Amino acid sequence: MATSEANATRIMLAVNESTIRGYPHASISSRGAFDWTLQKIVRSNASDFKLLFLHVQVPDEDGFDDMDSIYASPEDFKAMKHRDRIRGLHLLEYFVTRCHEIGVACEAWIKKGDPKEVICHEVKRIQPDLLVVGSRGLGPFQRVFVGTVSEFCVKHAECPVVTIKRRPDETPQDPVDD
Amino acid sequence: MATSEANATRIMLAVNESTIRGYPHASISSRGAFDWTLQKIVRSNASDFKLLFLHVQVPDEDGFDDMDSIYASPEDFKAMKHRDRIRGLHLLEYFVTRCHEIGVACEAWIKKGDPKEVICHEVKRIQPDLLVVGSRGLGPFQRVFVGTVSEFCVKHAECPVVTIKRRPDETPQDPVDD
Repeated sequence: MATSEANATRIMLAVNESTIRGYPHASISSRGAFDWTLQKIVRSNASDFKLLFLHVQVPDEDGFDDMDSIYASPEDFKAMKHRDRIRGLHLLEYFVTRCHEIGVACEAWIKKGDPKEVICHEVKRIQPDLLVVGSRGLGPFQRVFVGTVSEFCVKHAECPVVTIKRRPDETPQDPVDD
Repeated sequence: MATSEANATRIMLAVNESTIRGYPHASISSRGAFDWTLQKIVRSNASDFKLLFLHVQVPDEDGFDDMDSIYASPEDFKAMKHRDRIRGLHLLEYFVTRCHEIGVACEAWIKKGDPKEVICHEVKRIQPDLLVVGSRGLGPFQRVFVGTVSEFCVKHAECPVVTIKRRPDETPQDPVDD
């Protein structure tokens, strides 16, 4: 029995790009969170769910790629912002395409800012039924330096949150990578 | 399409009795977590899921009811333990009956001990796909005195965990009550 989209369970997924492979590749933990959602929650009931993909671009981090660039005019900044946007869209295309293949309704959008703050802000605005965030599953020592978006969201997001840790066999040599 | 039970998504729910109404009544947060699971995850796809209800009885807490009792023989202790068990079973009966009405497969069992420790231990043993725990949604000041099982599980349980906070309109006068 098909569910009207208005009644679907709305699951927000925060997704980011791989720190190893860059755009358009999704991070290992983003893919893990997405696969878990499909396999364990959506299953074969695509019409009962709607997936909402939020990708938050960190302005500072993206800036590193442009360290050797020369900015001579306002157009140069526009071009840079345009490039960032295209990269983000390529990332989201992966998730939207997979949803389309499965037949699950989805929406995807990009925001700029501090991921943990933006995710919680978007949860407040969108009010999903569930927020799924991937996590690298770092130990306490590693966390001191990198911070974890998932822990912040568990505490502050105004909706139920589930954190999907990376599988040990998917952890790269440097666990801070993703 | 019916799913064989072996392939179902196994969701563990930690449930406890109401602090206001006692056995056989489920706490507000347990019922909230159960209702959320049915409405947002299971939906009309009962055959895709299996619910696993764990009720942890706290030996010390139960002892309060028996403060005025006189224990004169080993049989008195046996009788007390038997009474506790019956109470716990009445609680689980509520959840199992509702699952039966909906047609979702379930299992329910009772353990004794510190709820947070026992829940994490049972997660390790049972390996569910998801653990759902209700939460009173207490503020930091209140938490100092009562501790929260959900926070501990989010940190330590070896499976994805989702915490379902009580709705504000369901919060009793004393928010520590449940």
